[in-house]
Amino acid sequence: MIRPALDASAISEAVRHGETTVAEVADAFLERIEALEPDVHAFASFKPLQVRLQASLNEGRGLLAGVPVGIKDILDSADHPTQFFSPIYADHQPSRDAHVVTLLRQAGALIMGKTHTTEFAYMRTGPTRNPHDLERTPGSSSAGSAAGMAADFFAVALGTQTAGSLLKPAAYCGLFAFKPSFGLVSLEGVKPLAPSFDTVGWYGRSVRDLGLVARVLIPGFELPEAPRRPLHLGFCRTPRWDQVQPEVAEALEHAVEQLRHAGHQVSELKLPDEFAGVFDDHLIINDCEGARSLAKEFEQHRSLLSPSILAMFDRAAATTWDQETAAKARLAALAPRLNERCQPFDAILAPNCAMLAPLAVDSAENTGPSDFIKFWGAFGWPQVNIPLPRAEGLLPIGLQMIGRFRTDGALLRVAERVAAELLTDRGH
Amino acid sequence: MIRPALDASAISEAVRHGETTVAEVADAFLERIEALEPDVHAFASFKPLQVRLQASLNEGRGLLAGVPVGIKDILDSADHPTQFFSPIYADHQPSRDAHVVTLLRQAGALIMGKTHTTEFAYMRTGPTRNPHDLERTPGSSSAGSAAGMAADFFAVALGTQTAGSLLKPAAYCGLFAFKPSFGLVSLEGVKPLAPSFDTVGWYGRSVRDLGLVARVLIPGFELPEAPRRPLHLGFCRTPRWDQVQPEVAEALEHAVEQLRHAGHQVSELKLPDEFAGVFDDHLIINDCEGARSLAKEFEQHRSLLSPSILAMFDRAAATTWDQETAAKARLAALAPRLNERCQPFDAILAPNCAMLAPLAVDSAENTGPSDFIKFWGAFGWPQVNIPLPRAEGLLPIGLQMIGRFRTDGALLRVAERVAAELLTDRGH
Repeated sequence: MIRPALDASAISEAVRHGETTVAEVADAFLERIEALEPDVHAFASFKPLQVRLQASLNEGRGLLAGVPVGIKDILDSADHPTQFFSPIYADHQPSRDAHVVTLLRQAGALIMGKTHTTEFAYMRTGPTRNPHDLERTPGSSSAGSAAGMAADFFAVALGTQTAGSLLKPAAYCGLFAFKPSFGLVSLEGVKPLAPSFDTVGWYGRSVRDLGLVARVLIPGFELPEAPRRPLHLGFCRTPRWDQVQPEVAEALEHAVEQLRHAGHQVSELKLPDEFAGVFDDHLIINDCEGARSLAKEFEQHRSLLSPSILAMFDRAAATTWDQETAAKARLAALAPRLNERCQPFDAILAPNCAMLAPLAVDSAENTGPSDFIKFWGAFGWPQVNIPLPRAEGLLPIGLQMIGRFRTDGALLRVAERVAAELLTDRGH
Repeated sequence: MIRPALDASAISEAVRHGETTVAEVADAFLERIEALEPDVHAFASFKPLQVRLQASLNEGRGLLAGVPVGIKDILDSADHPTQFFSPIYADHQPSRDAHVVTLLRQAGALIMGKTHTTEFAYMRTGPTRNPHDLERTPGSSSAGSAAGMAADFFAVALGTQTAGSLLKPAAYCGLFAFKPSFGLVSLEGVKPLAPSFDTVGWYGRSVRDLGLVARVLIPGFELPEAPRRPLHLGFCRTPRWDQVQPEVAEALEHAVEQLRHAGHQVSELKLPDEFAGVFDDHLIINDCEGARSLAKEFEQHRSLLSPSILAMFDRAAATTWDQETAAKARLAALAPRLNERCQPFDAILAPNCAMLAPLAVDSAENTGPSDFIKFWGAFGWPQVNIPLPRAEGLLPIGLQMIGRFRTDGALLRVAERVAAELLTDRGH
């Protein structure tokens, strides 16, 4: 019997080697879902018979042979409705899969269902709860994918990120996550929000799974050799470090100390004041592009949009064309300077979320700031979340790792070593 | 009776003022289509009854009230199949309209049908012919939209551009065309090819129509006041001027002289040698991104792809990750330098295509180079085509006008003056 807690690499290997069948894998995960879904509410659409049908047709071949996957309901799917958590699209059934969903199927994955998103991947939250504490939010917007991972409903899940939508839920739910460099993964069939930032990313049970999925979703992607020498890491508190709650700050600093004790060099990376405006520039662009992306829904169905979306339209209307142009120009000018400052490091360490997962009841329109995530996402750089080892019963805390633009493979290799060091120290 | 040769601004005004009905407009254009479509082959899908039904439901309101529009078959549409000129998608019926198609409907437009594209907006051409000479190609990839405009099948048409797909057919078919700055128009429901460059653009009968459609498809777009002083234009022959055929070069130089005689300053803009690599960098990125965008079709339906698509995959496979990264970095580094050199000018004038429309029989996999178009598109800058006045019976020649990034409104205003000057000289 397959354990739902196995990672995708282990599951697909067991399937390919005939140590288990895809039907057995499907049954194990379906059982888990049927037991916990009534509390977690990860799924926007779930059809167990459809999963069993896929399993019976699955040939047990491919990089993701028999691997159960959850799909954020911001991506189109031919066998489930795609509703974007908006009444405007209630029961809307697309004619074809998003490009990445097809690539998953071609690699042998089992599509377990569509997972809850916030409304159009923006702020209004759905019913999903955090499996670590059902009173708390899993974060947004890739809420169902993250909560479903934490509840062992699937071994891999797709999300998307515009500001903090992939990494924040990874921090709150204690997951490995990877948001690739901007532009590497096809957005065909993915509802746009702010096209300057929109990126498909994914959750996995291990760093090696993050790389496995990268090989499926980024044709031509290859993992380089891991460096064997001690790593040189930059620890960047980012200009808003003062927002980080003491418990989170302490855990991050402890992780940095662990890495130093393991023989790696971790240097403080201080960014000059000119980087303090990145947060606001990201907001300006997100607002203006978001208003353009949802223009047709605003025109025809205004009364069905949430207050947070309408507030975004208000801010966009109050922003001039030249202000948006200037925000884009500032980011473009800062990118090479950030690259230069980060060049000496194998990767950057930074906070992911400033806080622990807040209570769901307080999170209907806001699950907490994404500042430390969007700071790097503004430049399209690849980002990873490493869940810090935590004592039983404590809420998860995430360590963010960042690579320079298009150094995705190297970042995953460095993340693999960092994750191993942090776990080792835990005494496992 | 409405004349199909009226521009969209005139048609929508006549409809809004009750001078004609939408049904009359539809009939006039349908008659034209029925007479000439058997020779032109502009449509991939055309349903006259469906057009009449739309016309009967049209309320005659909006910026595009009653304006007949053609839609390139690379954009999804809920009431026509979307086939991308690929047998892989034969009869494929999307569940919803591309975002821009919905915006057109909301503005009162009549969707006349889907127009022929090349295979996935790449190179393999369809059956469409150039109305100026039925032995010749209309250019690619927005072939049906351009040929349909030249044949008066609709007053506006949507296309897309990755390298030269919007402007080239405008040059060959003698059309006003506008490719906005990268990132302004939603790509939801548009099949991606190379996402670093993919942009929706359109054809119109006049520069004012290009601006009218911009107001519909770019929420928040506003046209500034036109400058009243003499213009200062930069004439950029671009590093590949030696490819321009004598007849085209002569026509462009004549246009420059006309503008000078009209009192405008036209200075030669010479770019330093470092810009000579832009063509190759565009090709590298187009190949690598194209191979990623069509990965699912390549995986499952390789035998249904054309030789030109397969050659793109071969080139992508022979390109390293670092070569693609370097190409992107070079373009990013050149962008501010190009901006600085173009800052003194109200707009840039440049060749559009180096040649006149070639024979269709020679154009099955290649309708001619797009170098002068993709040079500017590589930076995401807005581009306009002005059809040069030509004696009856001569094939069209296009003058390309370019603005700096996100100066779209100003570019259209300058283009309006340039077009008027060139027409005035013709003696109309």
